Amino acid sequence: MQGLLNDWRRTNYASECTPEIAGSDITIMGWVHEIRDFGGIMFVIIRDVTGRVQVTAPSKKVDEKIMEELREFRKESVVAIKGLVQEAGKAPNGVEIIPKEVKVLNLANQPLPMDPTEKVKAGIDTRLDSRFLDIRKENVSAIFKIKGQMFHTIRDYFYDNGFYEINTPKLVASATEGGTELFPITYFEKEAFLGQSPQLYKQMMMAAGMDKVFEIGQIFRAEEHDTLRHLNEAVSIDAEASFADDEDVMKILNDMLINVLKDVNENCADELAVLGHELEVPKGDFPVVTYDEAVDIVNSKDVPMEWGEDLSREAEKALGDTMGGFYFLTRWPSEIKPFYVMPVEGEEQYSHAFDLMYNNLELSSGATRVHQYDLLVKQIEERGLNPAGFGSYLKAFEYGMPPHAGWGVGADRLTMVLTGAENIRECVLFPRDRHRLTP
Amino acid sequence: MQGLLNDWRRTNYASECTPEIAGSDITIMGWVHEIRDFGGIMFVIIRDVTGRVQVTAPSKKVDEKIMEELREFRKESVVAIKGLVQEAGKAPNGVEIIPKEVKVLNLANQPLPMDPTEKVKAGIDTRLDSRFLDIRKENVSAIFKIKGQMFHTIRDYFYDNGFYEINTPKLVASATEGGTELFPITYFEKEAFLGQSPQLYKQMMMAAGMDKVFEIGQIFRAEEHDTLRHLNEAVSIDAEASFADDEDVMKILNDMLINVLKDVNENCADELAVLGHELEVPKGDFPVVTYDEAVDIVNSKDVPMEWGEDLSREAEKALGDTMGGFYFLTRWPSEIKPFYVMPVEGEEQYSHAFDLMYNNLELSSGATRVHQYDLLVKQIEERGLNPAGFGSYLKAFEYGMPPHAGWGVGADRLTMVLTGAENIRECVLFPRDRHRLTP
Repeated sequence: MQGLLNDWRRTNYASECTPEIAGSDITIMGWVHEIRDFGGIMFVIIRDVTGRVQVTAPSKKVDEKIMEELREFRKESVVAIKGLVQEAGKAPNGVEIIPKEVKVLNLANQPLPMDPTEKVKAGIDTRLDSRFLDIRKENVSAIFKIKGQMFHTIRDYFYDNGFYEINTPKLVASATEGGTELFPITYFEKEAFLGQSPQLYKQMMMAAGMDKVFEIGQIFRAEEHDTLRHLNEAVSIDAEASFADDEDVMKILNDMLINVLKDVNENCADELAVLGHELEVPKGDFPVVTYDEAVDIVNSKDVPMEWGEDLSREAEKALGDTMGGFYFLTRWPSEIKPFYVMPVEGEEQYSHAFDLMYNNLELSSGATRVHQYDLLVKQIEERGLNPAGFGSYLKAFEYGMPPHAGWGVGADRLTMVLTGAENIRECVLFPRDRHRLTP
Repeated sequence: MQGLLNDWRRTNYASECTPEIAGSDITIMGWVHEIRDFGGIMFVIIRDVTGRVQVTAPSKKVDEKIMEELREFRKESVVAIKGLVQEAGKAPNGVEIIPKEVKVLNLANQPLPMDPTEKVKAGIDTRLDSRFLDIRKENVSAIFKIKGQMFHTIRDYFYDNGFYEINTPKLVASATEGGTELFPITYFEKEAFLGQSPQLYKQMMMAAGMDKVFEIGQIFRAEEHDTLRHLNEAVSIDAEASFADDEDVMKILNDMLINVLKDVNENCADELAVLGHELEVPKGDFPVVTYDEAVDIVNSKDVPMEWGEDLSREAEKALGDTMGGFYFLTRWPSEIKPFYVMPVEGEEQYSHAFDLMYNNLELSSGATRVHQYDLLVKQIEERGLNPAGFGSYLKAFEYGMPPHAGWGVGADRLTMVLTGAENIRECVLFPRDRHRLTP
């Protein structure tokens, strides 16, 4: 069979080919990024996940058989090359590889459905249709390397702060919040839905005594959005903590994000440079603006907004222009928040809910939750929902539910902030919107 | 409002109440595990996620008002207690807390729908119906603490070994392998399905040049199983590596699991003790048995099995009895493996597929994958499937797909091995089977 590895194994990544290993015989494997054939000498740039390295084949030094094999290379084919590393001032990393043995692992058809070297710019739909080629571009893979660092830092933060990881079901029997539209599933003889949030489950884990929990997982919303900020399948970072209130969990979120910003700056400097994006790490706590103040700010910018309304897109922009960067928006009106949000004692028109914003982008919603059974039932009913539909959730409040608070962060939106992407589709490998279900 | 935290905050977990902090004033918060009232003295055991601590209230030392408040406690209510730590040889951790101030955060109704102190044993269905109470038992929460450690170690292993984390869509347009049954979804105007595996996506990420990737996420299978080993929603740990074959990724899996066993032994000793479970860490590599040898072993145990058949439950048991512990089962017949599995060169009836078994439980399947377009199309057709249904997947093989290999591990099954649970439902917070869609 053609193209088998057999006993060939990569000894070095491209980025490991530096003057320090000059004189070594190595094996590299990757994609043919560029071929320049000057007859008497050939240059082939090989690309792998770490970067690029140059193979230099002067016909005087290299077997004619190998020259022939190199001439059969096509761009974006997968190849393996054994050769000698030698210093070369002008080449990437200051070295070149003189080939001694060559293996074509998979020839790429020509022409390519899109150009991964970006000499021709492609639109987002063309790119997503050939996402595997699109991600070969370093300004695209950079986004997912940064996203990986983000998840890594966030999990380490949870581990270091005593949060237990949970996995809650995505197949559910009923809606979380009533309002949002759900995707229906045929589940054997029954009807089921795809979970729009782990909200009710992470609250039940508080009644289970797990103290502090987190989940990073998919959520599904059947909303007919067509914006740069919404997808129908997203990844949510959810946290919930017992014996804590909104201010406690805002502090956790604030600290966690500072860690993420620091780690991305430290460990993804190359990726940020490729993206031309700079991340400023805010000093101290994120600023806080109350909903009342926000209404005033928005109105002062001549964007109409009544007290009790959610922020329109224009209102978000007006507020974002004034606030800038990360900021918390607090003391939301109770009536526009879900039933599980705790009202402020004595001022029940206000709630212990907060959003975390970045400029005009909502990144997170959180709150102190209602932990009292009677109040919870009352709030469910006030929103026109039927408590009977929340049976197994409500039961957890009857037998020892602690006070608790929590939040959910949109992971794909946070990636937009970290990478400077303006379309959420840039931050998801295979995005799902109303029009796109493949690849 | 009743039961608000206000300015009360926990200062110490139960497990932190030790003789070293005798003389300190602290605040603890948790569940009322036990109340013993001898009139002149009361003992209340408070339980939190870390363990238990004793509150001792002698009426000579403690205000009558506080004695009254303590007498209103009910089992499994959530309370907060401020008090003085003092040494007490016979109490848990060698200390007791003399209460100075008491707050009831949430009273539990009586009687409880099940007994979390396990004086009355409940069946699995009763337990799952009141899962929030069930998890308060330390032999249940122990399972999820061990599962959390498992995920933690596995992610660290991936991070340390250069794997990039990916999230692939769970809403898909077509089946992965054709055979397995899928849950259909109504996706706006289209029909879609829930992903049964990230297989095709992680392979596309190899063509994307991401080199080595992992995903820990939900998978959904509409199979009508009714066993102790199957659920319809499960968590799968998936890995895929470029420029690697079956033996390379078996070594990765082997090393990763050794790390998990060591870390669980080291960091979850208390949880293993509660479960009465011992974990032996195998020395060296897991043993390997070929499919041909397995057929002979199974037949030698008087369990009928023909070459070319998958292992029946009886065959798995016969093989597990002989092999014991972790072992790889290799060189499977090609015809019973999926289209993406690489056949053995020159002996195409065999494949580069492997399973990882623990006794008679299949934990993982993996293989060298086919990376050659023509062979892949041929294998899809040989299985009676239509290559046209795999358009965006197949495209990735035409333009530079590297040789690659990978595996998937059932996270919930691996948790069974780590905890000694015999029913997979014990290892999932809110399991989903044909009959159960709540809570």
